[in-house]
Amino acid sequence: MENLAQVSYALDTFYFLMSGALVMWMAAGFAMLEAGLVRSKNTVEILTKNIALFAIACTMYLLCGYAIMYPGANEGGILPVLGSLIGTENSVEAVTAGGDDAPYYSARSDFFFQVVFVATAMSIVSGAVAERMKLWSFLLFAVFMTGFIYPVQGFWKWGGGFLNEANFQDFAGSGVVHMAGAAAALAGVLLLGARKGKYGKGGAVNAIPGANLPLATLGTFILWLGWFGFNGGSQLKLSDVENANAVAQIFVNTNAGAAGGVIAALIVARILFGKADLTMALNGALAGLVSITAEPLTPSAVSATLIGGVGGALVVFAILALDKVRIDDPVGAISVHGVVGIWGLLAVPLTNDGAEFSAQLLGIVTIFAWVFFASLIVWGAIKLIIGLRITEEEEYEGADLTECGMEAYPEFTGKQ
Amino acid sequence: MENLAQVSYALDTFYFLMSGALVMWMAAGFAMLEAGLVRSKNTVEILTKNIALFAIACTMYLLCGYAIMYPGANEGGILPVLGSLIGTENSVEAVTAGGDDAPYYSARSDFFFQVVFVATAMSIVSGAVAERMKLWSFLLFAVFMTGFIYPVQGFWKWGGGFLNEANFQDFAGSGVVHMAGAAAALAGVLLLGARKGKYGKGGAVNAIPGANLPLATLGTFILWLGWFGFNGGSQLKLSDVENANAVAQIFVNTNAGAAGGVIAALIVARILFGKADLTMALNGALAGLVSITAEPLTPSAVSATLIGGVGGALVVFAILALDKVRIDDPVGAISVHGVVGIWGLLAVPLTNDGAEFSAQLLGIVTIFAWVFFASLIVWGAIKLIIGLRITEEEEYEGADLTECGMEAYPEFTGKQ
Amino acid sequence: MENLAQVSYALDTFYFLMSGALVMWMAAGFAMLEAGLVRSKNTVEILTKNIALFAIACTMYLLCGYAIMYPGANEGGILPVLGSLIGTENSVEAVTAGGDDAPYYSARSDFFFQVVFVATAMSIVSGAVAERMKLWSFLLFAVFMTGFIYPVQGFWKWGGGFLNEANFQDFAGSGVVHMAGAAAALAGVLLLGARKGKYGKGGAVNAIPGANLPLATLGTFILWLGWFGFNGGSQLKLSDVENANAVAQIFVNTNAGAAGGVIAALIVARILFGKADLTMALNGALAGLVSITAEPLTPSAVSATLIGGVGGALVVFAILALDKVRIDDPVGAISVHGVVGIWGLLAVPLTNDGAEFSAQLLGIVTIFAWVFFASLIVWGAIKLIIGLRITEEEEYEGADLTECGMEAYPEFTGKQ
Repeated sequence: MENLAQVSYALDTFYFLMSGALVMWMAAGFAMLEAGLVRSKNTVEILTKNIALFAIACTMYLLCGYAIMYPGANEGGILPVLGSLIGTENSVEAVTAGGDDAPYYSARSDFFFQVVFVATAMSIVSGAVAERMKLWSFLLFAVFMTGFIYPVQGFWKWGGGFLNEANFQDFAGSGVVHMAGAAAALAGVLLLGARKGKYGKGGAVNAIPGANLPLATLGTFILWLGWFGFNGGSQLKLSDVENANAVAQIFVNTNAGAAGGVIAALIVARILFGKADLTMALNGALAGLVSITAEPLTPSAVSATLIGGVGGALVVFAILALDKVRIDDPVGAISVHGVVGIWGLLAVPLTNDGAEFSAQLLGIVTIFAWVFFASLIVWGAIKLIIGLRITEEEEYEGADLTECGMEAYPEFTGKQ
Repeated sequence: MENLAQVSYALDTFYFLMSGALVMWMAAGFAMLEAGLVRSKNTVEILTKNIALFAIACTMYLLCGYAIMYPGANEGGILPVLGSLIGTENSVEAVTAGGDDAPYYSARSDFFFQVVFVATAMSIVSGAVAERMKLWSFLLFAVFMTGFIYPVQGFWKWGGGFLNEANFQDFAGSGVVHMAGAAAALAGVLLLGARKGKYGKGGAVNAIPGANLPLATLGTFILWLGWFGFNGGSQLKLSDVENANAVAQIFVNTNAGAAGGVIAALIVARILFGKADLTMALNGALAGLVSITAEPLTPSAVSATLIGGVGGALVVFAILALDKVRIDDPVGAISVHGVVGIWGLLAVPLTNDGAEFSAQLLGIVTIFAWVFFASLIVWGAIKLIIGLRITEEEEYEGADLTECGMEAYPEFTGKQ
Repeated sequence: MENLAQVSYALDTFYFLMSGALVMWMAAGFAMLEAGLVRSKNTVEILTKNIALFAIACTMYLLCGYAIMYPGANEGGILPVLGSLIGTENSVEAVTAGGDDAPYYSARSDFFFQVVFVATAMSIVSGAVAERMKLWSFLLFAVFMTGFIYPVQGFWKWGGGFLNEANFQDFAGSGVVHMAGAAAALAGVLLLGARKGKYGKGGAVNAIPGANLPLATLGTFILWLGWFGFNGGSQLKLSDVENANAVAQIFVNTNAGAAGGVIAALIVARILFGKADLTMALNGALAGLVSITAEPLTPSAVSATLIGGVGGALVVFAILALDKVRIDDPVGAISVHGVVGIWGLLAVPLTNDGAEFSAQLLGIVTIFAWVFFASLIVWGAIKLIIGLRITEEEEYEGADLTECGMEAYPEFTGKQ
């Protein structure tokens, strides 16, 4: 059956690569979502941040992140034992030798799948700090986040570290990716402060509408599509009946979670605001997806709809609550990925008998604390050395002209 | 060969899931197409409808639609015998038992592929009723369409019902999906009436240009891409030489049909209007795709180009004809999916010896009549109870502000 | 092992079809990129060109291009021996016969993969001649380019012609696709001249900003995603360990090349202009991708990042240099695909021991000369017969109204 092992290896590798390509596509989703939700004067800058952070994430993870997260000798623990850069590829002999240790997919396909995940985590940050952070300060943070902060906590869970040994369950990354991204964002937002004019006297919250809602909707659909790779690929194997069934269940549940999130957010927003709020529907879809990411396999499709629905309702309240405490997050990233990410992690034991609330709590606290405080230190150092925030005048003018020297829509906004 | 059966099962499952993901992506295509072809003041509302209808379709089809369309005991007939919700997954034993009855792909992957189809049918409706229908009335209709009206006729053909037994041929759904969507749309449009200002005195037809044609073009490209999953996945099996060849032929023909549609629509529009009409080219692409959907396997690539070309020419005349009789369809959905869907169904016997014109006619009449009259009843009931149409003042203001409380492009349209 | 051969055949066919679908998606990428980088008054026209050229490419390649590029009897040489249209499909017997000659993927999947490549080459041209060329003249050129000029040089390399025999190495088409497209574009631009107002007295170069940079960014992300199919599919086989490993390496390197291109272009633009230039970052990504396309397999991921980085730096200087010599290319296509395509071809021997600089130079000179002069003749003939350029008044008004009779953004640009 030597050849069968090879075909099976090729199928699993292809499944991994297609999943990774879908996750890469999420970078476009974040870029469009964020570009649609900021004002036109800050659009070029957020687009530049998004494409640049993706490039930085890919390069830093290649240079050190992957080696930190997946060290050669996995023995658990807090400190990873660094391996070589991105490892060696599997030989035909190793694959066809058979046995449980035989590799069943290409080592490079694993790297590809992992490298697009770290970019996802970083993409979450850019939206929250939009419209007021210096571009180069943000990119400098991206270097540390993707090369070090993310990989360390990734090692703790997926690299075989202590959170994995403690039975913390996070199937595709509600915590390792989404809450981690939100924690880094929150640290940045706290040091950065709110956009000028966002919060008025006496608790007034001023809505700052996004300039291009079709773009934000497109971004959400892109993310929805990409999530099939994000969750579906995280099964890590496809090529037998049980794994194929699992991947199919994950696709169904991922879709159901998103659908539940949209419906719940629409209804909650209708009750609270009296209107069909598109931005809440979009955030509801994303919240549904984040909710189901910690455990997309064990729920039934109906349960997945409900889990996503709770996430979709929760995100509306989270966005309102953050505004109450004057944490200014232009795209709702901290609510969608942070608050709802926690919900997703806590929901795992509801359908997965092997999970425990205590282990989930340990994972939430550990990952949040690590990413939040490590980020706070890095953001703080950047603030001291080159500053985090553009000047008040630049903010008024818009980051596009001052940071990038061009306008996103030069003919539409009546300035020319 | 137990393991080979498992790898083969995994491959067919993966092929189904990738196809389904491409069909899900069509939801983004419809959203962008429709958002680009309406005026800016109705853009948020059409976006909200599109993401909400997708969520509703997924949930209703999960709760009852799938069980209606694919009942446990397939014995043909008019009334489906309801099975359990979405069935049980296949066991390893059943798969590896061999024989013709052994399942060769995951039951969940089948559900995933089917659930995104019903969303496609519903997406067709939203464009035709755009710019004047109440948002919540539309969503209420979506509940009935996706949970009941669509699944019943889907059962008749794909669930093994009487149309299937009558040798009605509809490979990927020119009738079951596209004409069905158009029939529901037509019923809605007739009860709803035209947009204010669309038709003047003495037969005058006023063009109401879409606000964002790059978005409409993007939507068309998305649909074109998604259609490879729509038609390609409908072969239902990939994992041997004959099926792999069939899927490849379907990809080639789907692409050729779209290409033929673009060229024909461009030329016809050039002759009629003297210009290269982009919206007709886009509708030509979609018409080519709808044309080839009823039979994407048996034509040669050249025949597929011609079949698509007839569709592309036809859609130009259909759009003009509907305007003559004052049926106002802002995006041309009834022409593209209805008129051309009928053409596609009638074209099947041209290349498929096993098909008969009489059976095709029976299918067309049955599906159209069922969906049209069932929809008429549901639309009518909604009209009576909560109304279908926004007020004249709301229509003037735009549905975005009145239904959703926000603008799609607040900085571009000179209102701020 | 008869069945295993069939499953393996199905897997390779599916891999080809998915890769082809990703390359088809690049058509949307070029459309969005170009639509974002032109002024709003020329947007409908560039969109029409993009969807029409894709349709023409698919049809012409079906009617004669494929037969020219892949003739039945491959014996090398300069003149292809024409075979039948697109060949016959493989039989089950041929596949399961075994041996090195047994076909391992569907002939139709090969056609599908090839047909979307020729469309890519043609898409490169549309951007360079934007904002001033007559629409129908452009489409007429597309007929000759996709039906004849491209296939002939494609035959020389990939069809087994003399460049292949001379050991010219071009894995996925830095030369055959990208430089070829750029050569055709350059010939057109030279006959066409610059846009009015682009170049002033005394060497002044006036920036003409694109109307919609989020669209251009989206286009770049689409191209990035599609490139995984472009390069990944060009391995032509996936279904054993060595090929699966190769495809995975290609995915990693393609991504790394793009990332390197972004970073290098951003830094070079920062040094030259003092700003984070988004359009240079986008062109840097594409340049990185073009750089790695000639050899995406043999470099390590770090080498791929560096090769892409050189491309990303190079493209900034190339764009500036072309403006110096007053070659007006609104989207930078000649720089990205031509100048950087040459760099990619010359870089092959750096990591691939089997390649030679002399053979690379032979390929570059041959392909460039053939495509450039053949295009010059066709463009010249079109210029004589129906003209290439719209009138000065039409150029002032914008091609959208005069060529297509509609506006891309009728509500945003303050003309209504």
